Amino acid sequence: MDIEIVTIGDELLLGFTIDTNAAHLAREFAALGVRIVRRATCGDDAESIAAAVREALDRTGAVITTGGLGPTADDMTKPAIASIFGRGMVMDAEVLANLEQRWLTRFGHTLPVSNRQQAMVPEGCTILANRHGSAPGIWLEDDHGRWVVMLPGVPREMRGMLADTILPLLRDRVPKDGPVIRSRTLRTANIAESALADRLGELARGVNGMPLAFLPGNDGVDLRLTSWSLPSRDAEGALTQAAALLREKVGRFIYGEGDDDLAALMLSECAMRDLTLAVAESCTGGMLGERLTAIPGSSRTVQGGVIAYANEVKTRELGVPAEMIAAHGAVSEPVARAMAEGVRQRFGTGIGIGITGIAGPDGGTPEKPVGTVWVAVDVEGDVRAVRALLPGNRFEIRYRAAQLALDRLRRAFAREAGDDAVGWTSRG
Amino acid sequence: MDIEIVTIGDELLLGFTIDTNAAHLAREFAALGVRIVRRATCGDDAESIAAAVREALDRTGAVITTGGLGPTADDMTKPAIASIFGRGMVMDAEVLANLEQRWLTRFGHTLPVSNRQQAMVPEGCTILANRHGSAPGIWLEDDHGRWVVMLPGVPREMRGMLADTILPLLRDRVPKDGPVIRSRTLRTANIAESALADRLGELARGVNGMPLAFLPGNDGVDLRLTSWSLPSRDAEGALTQAAALLREKVGRFIYGEGDDDLAALMLSECAMRDLTLAVAESCTGGMLGERLTAIPGSSRTVQGGVIAYANEVKTRELGVPAEMIAAHGAVSEPVARAMAEGVRQRFGTGIGIGITGIAGPDGGTPEKPVGTVWVAVDVEGDVRAVRALLPGNRFEIRYRAAQLALDRLRRAFAREAGDDAVGWTSRG
Repeated sequence: MDIEIVTIGDELLLGFTIDTNAAHLAREFAALGVRIVRRATCGDDAESIAAAVREALDRTGAVITTGGLGPTADDMTKPAIASIFGRGMVMDAEVLANLEQRWLTRFGHTLPVSNRQQAMVPEGCTILANRHGSAPGIWLEDDHGRWVVMLPGVPREMRGMLADTILPLLRDRVPKDGPVIRSRTLRTANIAESALADRLGELARGVNGMPLAFLPGNDGVDLRLTSWSLPSRDAEGALTQAAALLREKVGRFIYGEGDDDLAALMLSECAMRDLTLAVAESCTGGMLGERLTAIPGSSRTVQGGVIAYANEVKTRELGVPAEMIAAHGAVSEPVARAMAEGVRQRFGTGIGIGITGIAGPDGGTPEKPVGTVWVAVDVEGDVRAVRALLPGNRFEIRYRAAQLALDRLRRAFAREAGDDAVGWTSRG
Repeated sequence: MDIEIVTIGDELLLGFTIDTNAAHLAREFAALGVRIVRRATCGDDAESIAAAVREALDRTGAVITTGGLGPTADDMTKPAIASIFGRGMVMDAEVLANLEQRWLTRFGHTLPVSNRQQAMVPEGCTILANRHGSAPGIWLEDDHGRWVVMLPGVPREMRGMLADTILPLLRDRVPKDGPVIRSRTLRTANIAESALADRLGELARGVNGMPLAFLPGNDGVDLRLTSWSLPSRDAEGALTQAAALLREKVGRFIYGEGDDDLAALMLSECAMRDLTLAVAESCTGGMLGERLTAIPGSSRTVQGGVIAYANEVKTRELGVPAEMIAAHGAVSEPVARAMAEGVRQRFGTGIGIGITGIAGPDGGTPEKPVGTVWVAVDVEGDVRAVRALLPGNRFEIRYRAAQLALDRLRRAFAREAGDDAVGWTSRG
């Protein structure tokens, strides 16, 4: 099934708002086997809305709109689209009753006259209940099976209605054994795209006929497999099989799937092992602590840490000898190790993590250019350190340094013998 | 001048990529007085591209496309659009020479045959140099003055070419005294939307005929004034005048304009006063340190801090008496004050900041519900504390707590006498 999307709103056209609804709709529909063939954005006026929706209907016969269902005068979506279908507008008693009830319970007074028009709907439409806001959705269909579904523009409401109502309705209209588009993402850390491609060999070009996309980001390189042509019942199995082939080649660099967060995974590992944790951060300035404590329940594992931005703080709070800093520099293996050991001993935790580096834009030297980072992980006295030359701007270097530290902890847990140099890091 | 935007790419239609180019283009054009009347997204195939661009040309006569200019087989933009204009494709010697040079210097070998097609351009087009990547832009115009500009889809390249080439070219075509759309944003912190509206009174509905938008976010509520109908030479003056009226009413809550970051502003204030700073963070877990050290040059001011997540850390590292925590709870005024004082004394800085709170989702009580936060700022021994009940999820509560701390520092610098309860905070 092919459909078009029309998103409505001057705020979108003016660039005040970035359209995140469109991408969400696209992914959900693709997974169902519904293909979005065109997307358009138009302004709030009735003429623009009618023109954009009429053209989409003529081309494709199935249209979903978002936006323009609120109570204000500039919300012209319903009458504009009703006119395309040659329908008038009528007051819907049930919608009106719901609105009145909502105002009474939420705001303690009766519905203002200006809000009554929210209960006006096109003749002969189907009302789609909105459990997430005040404006209901509308399904309008003509005798030839051409249809328009109108959804609210507020992302939370749109997503809720999509899951509650629209996807189930469309599922009934899509052929049961038609092709769907499904993806599986494997998340790698601490290996460069080219090194991954080398190790994957032939698989880098695709697995069992499925394309493989390399998606480098701050967390690492994500590997996305996509099944384009299989029916729903076969797609998941094929993705699982293909993912297993990738894991055979580069499994030790894969820390998770989908939206997995390495910080959350490491907290679970610590909790499983009954290990507490403390951080000693120089160049990351609190970012690793922030990522770990972003996870609800992290207080079970994270005791805290020291933001050791100045060298005197490294010495006074973490016991890093001033002579060591003078001899090797603050960004060095001995200092990273001393930070990890120091914070573990001082905080009495099972794990200590030390990060020191040059995030730039200034402070680099020929021997230690911007992006040079040393990370050390102390797990119950077993200390491992690694050096990396991280690419990117200040934010990216800092983020990648924190991610590198988490990945070193993952590897320490996996009791991997030795470190090999792949991509950014080198033997520590 | 009215134009349409067509963004090209299967990745966009499938929702794998969120279209950030569109919003950027819209803002830049609006500021110039160019109105985007429709935006469309289509797939990579020649037929879809030709259809979308032809329709846009017929409607509006001026079209900007992004995407589909790369070397791969699915980049069909140029031939598809050339066909609309009835033009063939020709090899451009200068573009080819540039490509060959680029490959030689960057990759050390000659241009692969598959990349030669990047030098094919529509007959009679104008080549737009791309200093930010390999694919040049294309300007194609017919005898009736209808035109299409093709830009690369990579955001960095698109933005660079827009500033270098497209905006200057369009500026010459826009009437000098036509209306432009310009905005001015004033950033407030630590005051709720409704409290701002109360204080603004009549101005909340608009200033000198310009609409005022309230944009609540994690940094606080931004106030956006927009001039819609004035020519370029008058718009900036009118915005400055309107902004001054807003400042008269709510100036003490305004910390900056546009993209100003409160952390960066506070670092400048500290540097100006020659004051160093240390943080003591409980519920924020390093987020305030992270925000401050995100600013290049922050090492001049930020010494570091203590992430005091566990109560024992507050006592051992910051000298907060265990009896105080037992008597008042970790989230209390005395503990916040002791954290700020403790970290300032321990780190020997001019400023100490303490944050303690309940970020949720668990840990709330009837007396101290989730969102309860105490913040204390110690500036050279003058300690001020404030309590807030922050709305939102775990991330929002933590982010707002860090922002509240920065705003308290701003107020301490402003030597404001006393605190009044507006919105989230109450007298401390």
